[in-house]
Amino acid sequence: MTMEELKNCVRNVPDFPIKGIQFKDVTTLFKNPQILRELSNRLYEMYRDKNITKVVGIESRGFIMGPLLADRLGAGFIPVRKAGKLPAAVFEETYGKEYGTDRIEVHQDAIETGETVLLHDDLLATGGTMAATVRLMRKFNPKNIYVNCLIELEDLKGRAAFDPDIRIDSLIRYAI
Amino acid sequence: MTMEELKNCVRNVPDFPIKGIQFKDVTTLFKNPQILRELSNRLYEMYRDKNITKVVGIESRGFIMGPLLADRLGAGFIPVRKAGKLPAAVFEETYGKEYGTDRIEVHQDAIETGETVLLHDDLLATGGTMAATVRLMRKFNPKNIYVNCLIELEDLKGRAAFDPDIRIDSLIRYAI
Repeated sequence: MTMEELKNCVRNVPDFPIKGIQFKDVTTLFKNPQILRELSNRLYEMYRDKNITKVVGIESRGFIMGPLLADRLGAGFIPVRKAGKLPAAVFEETYGKEYGTDRIEVHQDAIETGETVLLHDDLLATGGTMAATVRLMRKFNPKNIYVNCLIELEDLKGRAAFDPDIRIDSLIRYAI
Repeated sequence: MTMEELKNCVRNVPDFPIKGIQFKDVTTLFKNPQILRELSNRLYEMYRDKNITKVVGIESRGFIMGPLLADRLGAGFIPVRKAGKLPAAVFEETYGKEYGTDRIEVHQDAIETGETVLLHDDLLATGGTMAATVRLMRKFNPKNIYVNCLIELEDLKGRAAFDPDIRIDSLIRYAI
């Protein structure tokens, strides 16, 4: 499948969650077994030779492909969750939102020093949540950090939120 | 691995989220690649001959193993989400919580009449959310509905919340 064919399977929902936003609905990808398999295969091929030891998924749509990819790569899966959801001792990180700030957390025993981690979420827009997750990962002193998303909205220039040592890959890119 | 060995890998967190609750933390299962694979294999073996066409995961911890299992079974994955999160036309269902009610939603085009669906969540406690998800699924007139959870707290008698035609399987059971 080409990127254009994949793109045709993403549902565009106008004015969601607010007027003026063209929401990219990825549920239409996951509901189709052939496309789910295609995404799974592509992500696996992208990272199979990177010695990834942990895949980190961001709540909650990053939980969908993250564990699947972890299992295929022979890595563990680590959830990054919104404040107050994880039960044991956590590291936390805050980031700016349109109104106020938000907080994300990860268990302190999730990752060991020197591991290679792959962060996954469904969407890269302005990059705020994903860049905060990278800062959260730095606390573990990992060897390498990769960033992956299914969809990248290029006009929002999310890549500018990241340090240059972070490699970012997306499967489906929208120029506008 | 025996059920007791798996149980030893679940972290027990006392007094979370409130005093008196012994919280079963499944993140310690997912972070270990061998255990993630073991869970994946066991779920696959449990349902490989059931002609499952859709795996339905309940937000957000049901998103972790649901899509992985869907991919292994050659099925599609469908998210059931909290109110207002899904962008297209939805069916909805409410259920009682300790204080007030909660609402879950699924896209109206998620499932076709006559499909065999497998509902997955990490935990079966009183069964309120999962039983509401079964009612949500009935709107699609599926051929069969299976229910799966990683952990079942047997003393909370969650199975009593379901009609007798629903088959419920759990991987790890706690008597108390």
